Amino acid sequence: MSRRDEAEALDARDPVASARALFALPEGVLYLDGNSLGPPAAGAASRVEAAVRAEWGEGLVSSWNAAGWWEEPIRLGDRIARLVGAAPGQVAVCDSTSVNLYKVLASALRLAAGRRVVVAERECFPTDRYMLEGLSSVPGALHVRLVGHAPGDLVDGCDESVGAVLVNHVDYRTARRVDLGAVVARAHDVGALVVADVAHSAGAIEVALDDWGVDFAVGCTYKYLNGGPGSPAFVYVASRHLTAATQPLSGWHGHERPFAFTDRYAPAPGIRRFLCGSPPIVAYAALDAALDVWDSVDLRAVVAKGQDLVDLLLDLLDERCPELTVASPRARPERGSHVALRHEGAYDVVRALAARGVLADFREPDVVRVGLAPLYLRFVDVVDAVSVLRDVLDDRPWERAPTGDRATVT
Amino acid sequence: MSRRDEAEALDARDPVASARALFALPEGVLYLDGNSLGPPAAGAASRVEAAVRAEWGEGLVSSWNAAGWWEEPIRLGDRIARLVGAAPGQVAVCDSTSVNLYKVLASALRLAAGRRVVVAERECFPTDRYMLEGLSSVPGALHVRLVGHAPGDLVDGCDESVGAVLVNHVDYRTARRVDLGAVVARAHDVGALVVADVAHSAGAIEVALDDWGVDFAVGCTYKYLNGGPGSPAFVYVASRHLTAATQPLSGWHGHERPFAFTDRYAPAPGIRRFLCGSPPIVAYAALDAALDVWDSVDLRAVVAKGQDLVDLLLDLLDERCPELTVASPRARPERGSHVALRHEGAYDVVRALAARGVLADFREPDVVRVGLAPLYLRFVDVVDAVSVLRDVLDDRPWERAPTGDRATVT
Repeated sequence: MSRRDEAEALDARDPVASARALFALPEGVLYLDGNSLGPPAAGAASRVEAAVRAEWGEGLVSSWNAAGWWEEPIRLGDRIARLVGAAPGQVAVCDSTSVNLYKVLASALRLAAGRRVVVAERECFPTDRYMLEGLSSVPGALHVRLVGHAPGDLVDGCDESVGAVLVNHVDYRTARRVDLGAVVARAHDVGALVVADVAHSAGAIEVALDDWGVDFAVGCTYKYLNGGPGSPAFVYVASRHLTAATQPLSGWHGHERPFAFTDRYAPAPGIRRFLCGSPPIVAYAALDAALDVWDSVDLRAVVAKGQDLVDLLLDLLDERCPELTVASPRARPERGSHVALRHEGAYDVVRALAARGVLADFREPDVVRVGLAPLYLRFVDVVDAVSVLRDVLDDRPWERAPTGDRATVT
Repeated sequence: MSRRDEAEALDARDPVASARALFALPEGVLYLDGNSLGPPAAGAASRVEAAVRAEWGEGLVSSWNAAGWWEEPIRLGDRIARLVGAAPGQVAVCDSTSVNLYKVLASALRLAAGRRVVVAERECFPTDRYMLEGLSSVPGALHVRLVGHAPGDLVDGCDESVGAVLVNHVDYRTARRVDLGAVVARAHDVGALVVADVAHSAGAIEVALDDWGVDFAVGCTYKYLNGGPGSPAFVYVASRHLTAATQPLSGWHGHERPFAFTDRYAPAPGIRRFLCGSPPIVAYAALDAALDVWDSVDLRAVVAKGQDLVDLLLDLLDERCPELTVASPRARPERGSHVALRHEGAYDVVRALAARGVLADFREPDVVRVGLAPLYLRFVDVVDAVSVLRDVLDDRPWERAPTGDRATVT
């Protein structure tokens, strides 16, 4: 039985297989970049069109109440909550991941009783570090302690001076997964809080924010959650903090009584206090359509399939593309749902793959990043992608490529 | 000649009249709440549908470059720039008005060489004050000096300790217009910078940010600019500040080289440094369609028509509804494009108007707010609205209304 036949057999008994039909995937494309931008749900285009034509166009301003716009950040938050292991009432969808990170970092430090040190990995996702830098540029706000990327470095960085630990659950390049539960345990031991960025894990691997005792989390909705380019991000605050936690981006949508137009800011009860300004309702419509897909599948089956897809990819790469260096962990509990491959010609390999309909992405300086989104990819897609990759490697496009601009997007 | 005949004659020679056909307005509705949420452009629904289906669905992640998503905040900013009297390169569309206000307030204070006082009106738009309060909750960031609402109070509040003055160009309740040029002159005299919120003036009355010497401005795109519910806001930074100005929400979209993933944040040249995280592309599509309308009209003619509409409304109210107290200024240079009317039964009047297809809004405690958006309203609409208002006042709905919840949205 050939590898492709085996893959077909796996697809035939895949309990998640039916979800693929719920996406609008272009013909002739093998999409291995859903970890950067997920594709639209099949219903997304008509949903946003209806949001404009009916809710906005017919209902006009009354739709803030009549169409439930006012509740969207919380309603959508609850839809995402179950995907990240959170009970309802702890997740809101609003602003960008970066903005939400600012809110929760500031909030964590306010709860940390004078402690001003934040521990983070030097190699965490750059915008996370940039936001830390931004917050630290406010006098007295915080001191950043950067640690290395080895397992345990974050834990080793925790001591009694630390107010918060910022953790990327899955590394955006290598897909290395941090044992969040262990980080939380160590941080709580020394009295620090944990802020987790789950952008590269939500919707792909197991995320259990409540069970792990995470204090704050942020994540984006445009990767494995398929909410659309730049769709509003989410923010999680553990319910035990929701009475005391406040944040500096205290806009009116987070106010206790937004229309009382009171003199002083009074935070709304619950997660609503982490809202700020008016949210982009039309963008919510696309996300809402994407979240419908999750209602038709078993989350555990999706997660298991994702890891099976990665196993298959690693096996095939070992067999057929030994010249590529796998820069991602091989053990299932230590990895996310994408794979980083090192090769001197990575940039040109990614371009050549794209020319043949296989979309992956390139990360400086020499990484091919292959994302395996379990909701819509098939096992045969992995086999076919590796076949094209083998052809591209044989073709050696990097030997004849001019040096030039390299444009990519996460 | 009746008032309505006169209005028809005005409509017949209105140079902006053709713009009305470029909007999707529901049948049977007289929409006097465009100062809260503008209606969709006729092309908005199909534009967002195409953004989802073609740009996102077909182009997938490559559309960040291929469809120009990466440039949208700046391209749309330049489209808005000309509506607020700004040369290109000084306006970006991103985040919410509240978030942008936080950025520019922090930025102004960094430029203010140690001065920590911000002057603002006690009665400015609440979210503006809440954001000030949020920023002031960061230790050492700023001290807020609240002043009264009388003309001149802001100017009188300026002294050598002041780093920035926060001004609402047009008051959200009364439509009172501040002489921004005069505030700038006084602020600059004492070495302070001016942050203007033009949410209630952009697209309705003359805004000349460059000519007036305003330093920073923010505004929303969902009122007179018709970008859609919660559509991304805009931020203006005068070009003379764009080299030195930095801001604390330093996300990767504002980085000099977003994909270099460098260790340190380095702000991009120009207005791009005021971006933060990934912006909601689908929401941009609706705004882009709305901005097309402005290409077909003369901005000065729109502004003049808006003031003519307000004059007509004030005349008709004097004639026909003398029991209402006009709480807005009557002189053209002192007012915006909406009118606040006080009446003890305001809440029930607004509800009764809505039941008859006339949508205005209510503001606590006793204000009927009537917005006259010149792009799509006709002079006959004003006459018809006042006729319905007269009927409602005669019907005295407040005398039989139960006391209950009052839900409104700006």
